[in-house]
Amino acid sequence: MPGVGKKSAQRIAYHLLQRDRDGARKMAAALTDAAEHIGHCNRCRNFSETPVCDYCSSDRRDRSLLCVVESPADVSAVDEAGFKGVYFVLMGHLSPLDGIGPEELELDKLGAILDEDEVREVILATNSTVEGEATAHFIGDMVRQRGKRVTRLAHGVPMGGELEYVDSSTLSEAITGRREVL
Amino acid sequence: MPGVGKKSAQRIAYHLLQRDRDGARKMAAALTDAAEHIGHCNRCRNFSETPVCDYCSSDRRDRSLLCVVESPADVSAVDEAGFKGVYFVLMGHLSPLDGIGPEELELDKLGAILDEDEVREVILATNSTVEGEATAHFIGDMVRQRGKRVTRLAHGVPMGGELEYVDSSTLSEAITGRREVL
Repeated sequence: MPGVGKKSAQRIAYHLLQRDRDGARKMAAALTDAAEHIGHCNRCRNFSETPVCDYCSSDRRDRSLLCVVESPADVSAVDEAGFKGVYFVLMGHLSPLDGIGPEELELDKLGAILDEDEVREVILATNSTVEGEATAHFIGDMVRQRGKRVTRLAHGVPMGGELEYVDSSTLSEAITGRREVL
Repeated sequence: MPGVGKKSAQRIAYHLLQRDRDGARKMAAALTDAAEHIGHCNRCRNFSETPVCDYCSSDRRDRSLLCVVESPADVSAVDEAGFKGVYFVLMGHLSPLDGIGPEELELDKLGAILDEDEVREVILATNSTVEGEATAHFIGDMVRQRGKRVTRLAHGVPMGGELEYVDSSTLSEAITGRREVL
């Protein structure tokens, strides 16, 4: 499991068996429950216990703004940053070599959402990796074909960061994307 | 010294004494030479062997664009990122508690440069720390008083980075500063 190596796993196992058998039973029940009941939202593909997730069914969110991300963890990250629109979760990125194409990411579902009049702008928030950029490019084309606005997250210096430790391509983007201070 | 602890220093010392006394002598000469001859550029305050540094005396650089940074290391970083304007090096940041005010940063020199007609835009590229931001704010006021354009480096997701590992305030800036993809 991510972040838990062999030693840690052993320590956790012994702890549960020696001191917290009841906790082990509760955890087992919670895991079974999660495995049984957590599915995907029919609309945005995010993890959800209900057919349509809380984000998609909320009437407090701006449905004209659609943020496309790679994973449910990204939804949490973007949401914590204060985003108030809705999401589409790709559950991966395009990767032809691994057999992951538009069908696997269910981009037809995304297409159906884009066809709705409500959506006015799509924010491509895929990772800034090669695969993420390629996926963003592909989806960007889909959005433009429908005559809607496409934007990409800004690149730049991290908040609180020191210039010296920023790589030169990021710094170059930060210079190009510099903003007027009023 | 930065990056060299007690053990490494000892190892270097023994290496020089046992195997490379000549190297030690050369290094000593180079250090003496540097300590004697490297001063500050009269114009931009960067390290320089000549009264006016190569950046300031070059006729290939865009003198209408002035980038204000905290340290000579930042000049290297920004320059590697492909910046073609000129610099002003603060050699620190405003820090009233440590007795570092506008005089210590020689902001009067910066003021004199700003008074020249040539400069049209000042890019504030101080670190994104509390002190760096305060310094940028102060200098921003100086520039605005002279009716010139002030910009700040963009904040955002680092190139090649994954969303999940970006802190929420940076992500929030990346969303606000999102750019249209054409």
